Amino acid sequence: MTTIHRVTSQDRRFPLKPGEGVDSIHSNPVYSYAVTFLETDKGIAGTGLAFTLGAGNELVCQAIDHLSQSLVGREIHELMADWGTVSRSLADHPQLRWVGPHKGVVHLALASITNAVFDLWAKDRGVPLWKLLLDMSPEEVVALLDLSYLDEILDRDEAITIIRNEQELRGEREEVLAKGYPGYDTSVGWFDYPDKEIVENAKRALDQGFAAMKLKVGSKDPKRDIHRTGLVREAVGEEVRLMVDANQAWSVPEALEICPRLAVNNLYWIEEPTHPDDVQGHKKIAEAVAPTAIAAGEHIPNRVLFKNFMRMGGMKIVQVDATRVAGVSEFITVSLLARKFGLKVVPHVGDMGLIHRHLVLFNHIALGHEKLFLEAIPHLDSYFVHPSVVREGVYETPREPGMGTDLKSEIHSSAL
Amino acid sequence: MTTIHRVTSQDRRFPLKPGEGVDSIHSNPVYSYAVTFLETDKGIAGTGLAFTLGAGNELVCQAIDHLSQSLVGREIHELMADWGTVSRSLADHPQLRWVGPHKGVVHLALASITNAVFDLWAKDRGVPLWKLLLDMSPEEVVALLDLSYLDEILDRDEAITIIRNEQELRGEREEVLAKGYPGYDTSVGWFDYPDKEIVENAKRALDQGFAAMKLKVGSKDPKRDIHRTGLVREAVGEEVRLMVDANQAWSVPEALEICPRLAVNNLYWIEEPTHPDDVQGHKKIAEAVAPTAIAAGEHIPNRVLFKNFMRMGGMKIVQVDATRVAGVSEFITVSLLARKFGLKVVPHVGDMGLIHRHLVLFNHIALGHEKLFLEAIPHLDSYFVHPSVVREGVYETPREPGMGTDLKSEIHSSAL
Repeated sequence: MTTIHRVTSQDRRFPLKPGEGVDSIHSNPVYSYAVTFLETDKGIAGTGLAFTLGAGNELVCQAIDHLSQSLVGREIHELMADWGTVSRSLADHPQLRWVGPHKGVVHLALASITNAVFDLWAKDRGVPLWKLLLDMSPEEVVALLDLSYLDEILDRDEAITIIRNEQELRGEREEVLAKGYPGYDTSVGWFDYPDKEIVENAKRALDQGFAAMKLKVGSKDPKRDIHRTGLVREAVGEEVRLMVDANQAWSVPEALEICPRLAVNNLYWIEEPTHPDDVQGHKKIAEAVAPTAIAAGEHIPNRVLFKNFMRMGGMKIVQVDATRVAGVSEFITVSLLARKFGLKVVPHVGDMGLIHRHLVLFNHIALGHEKLFLEAIPHLDSYFVHPSVVREGVYETPREPGMGTDLKSEIHSSAL
Repeated sequence: MTTIHRVTSQDRRFPLKPGEGVDSIHSNPVYSYAVTFLETDKGIAGTGLAFTLGAGNELVCQAIDHLSQSLVGREIHELMADWGTVSRSLADHPQLRWVGPHKGVVHLALASITNAVFDLWAKDRGVPLWKLLLDMSPEEVVALLDLSYLDEILDRDEAITIIRNEQELRGEREEVLAKGYPGYDTSVGWFDYPDKEIVENAKRALDQGFAAMKLKVGSKDPKRDIHRTGLVREAVGEEVRLMVDANQAWSVPEALEICPRLAVNNLYWIEEPTHPDDVQGHKKIAEAVAPTAIAAGEHIPNRVLFKNFMRMGGMKIVQVDATRVAGVSEFITVSLLARKFGLKVVPHVGDMGLIHRHLVLFNHIALGHEKLFLEAIPHLDSYFVHPSVVREGVYETPREPGMGTDLKSEIHSSAL
């Protein structure tokens, strides 16, 4: 019996070095977490994160304060036995729902809250999140999920069947636990880095063992993007998987013009070519650049929009983010949808939110998703009690109980 | 020269009588405004509103505080000469954008801010908003709009052409200014009202001169919805336009099951049958209930999602809300999109946010949209300095300068 005694939010912000994290749209990021902190009657606490870029982080914190008070007094195992129902009731708060629904500030708050209860639950069991999830029956996993508004694509029975059918194939896949999960390096080519620096960074990433890396594009002048993409491809050779990320910079016609010209560099994917709400726009661009894949998801807020993207053919690579959708639960829901549609899941960042280190293991072993690679952005490592460890381009399997989301308390952290 | 000296937000909440405003999803609404208040060096002030249901209203107010400070010191006419560019820069705030983008709390804040500058501008000119807009050249109107991410459907030149082509047809349409704009009554059938009351209310609405009215549906038990819809149809006869509103209660299969059974009551539209992000779901339902129309929009956050809904055939009635999208500007953008796709615009509520009283006149006279009817929900009338006047089921044309959005200051208004 472990009972939640107190829920608080914390607004934690971490300045970056000049140029770090900058892309075509987000010119001055301050990497920040809206933290849900769950205190219990035992010596353990749960820490949940939602990620933001600074301003607005306090809004997510206040939404956490609003939404989370009903968790006080709840016993964690009893709570999680039917988390799908609880999650739905929080998502459908009769007043707060209006300022969403299921998107923006209130949904980020639900992400943080959800991640906190999962962290607490895993710590209470004394296991890392990936193991907590792998040890559950299919029925127990599906009881964690809010499958509302998905009836025609994925109902409870089918979700259980998908997981059950994968169970006998788990053995071989569990090798990933010893070997670790491959990473890819995003920090080679932030938007404002000069040409020389991206070439050096790309070569260094190769030396560090990464077999995949990503470059920021989305310039006003397409020639700059084409030039830089060519530079990196030339520097690393044809064997490395290279991706580019426009961070929503282009209109649909602009993307249709430039994407094929970038794709000639043998790109593994082109990420966020246009506005994240433009389902049909993504579909058109995806058709124009095939077989190069379109990747999207870091700004797709919920399972309903993911369902639309997947069914329309708007993405091949599903970059669902457990700190954007409603936490671990909706991440699993979206991963099940992707399984059904035969799409690959490569979550948005592995180390900054930390949770995805666990979830890619679950996705591979329990859902049968292909073992690909997970984004690595190390800028926040020093702020965590249990930072992710990436060696020779590979994420080590986390062994500490919980998700590893505990932040060091003494670190400088300032609200704007 | 009228310069903005100070921008503040106000959190105004107004409790309703029991049962008022209740629908299948929103069980305890407290009608609330996140107010942007612009003070100037002259004796006039601008008041902009975004509408919420209570909890979370303070989040919108704080986002207003964040986003609006760059307006201090700006001269209103100079500011509005290129509002489309300013609006885009606010919508793309490099940090706050992450907690949207263009949706939820931050976009509601932009709605409130935008509406405040339009109110101030109209007051400074000494004209009601509808006249301010009608007196502009097509080029001036289009300079108010952020058309980004719409290139392939509606660019600046085409927007100007649409408005210019309608100019010579204005004369006849201006009759609406003297006659007023028809209303429809939504308060006949809130979700929890007993059968007897909805029948009485429907008959009273008829007596008051309304020729159209709406009933809330979305019950767990479809029989209740079918029964109540039949009751109202029987009470008011076949000539009255009757609509039903499910407020997103159904999954797609549920909607496909119940909507045709409701539509036999000669419904003018079925509103929000499912989740507001489900573009394809709406398309399927629209096909199943045709020729009955699907109406949606009160929860569609921006022009990009509207573009998707329209192009996919997900709606026939566009219920864009200038207190949900980015205010007057994005309302006009969406109305232009609707014109292009041949769809009708019936904004979400005419009196509560008050702005739509003005915007339907602009839409009809300047854009050539059909004169239909505008939702009337009178519960907040007493709180406004210039409430809307609905006589014999018809909205009187507002004559006071601005939008009529000034709230009485002495009214009880409490933050939760």
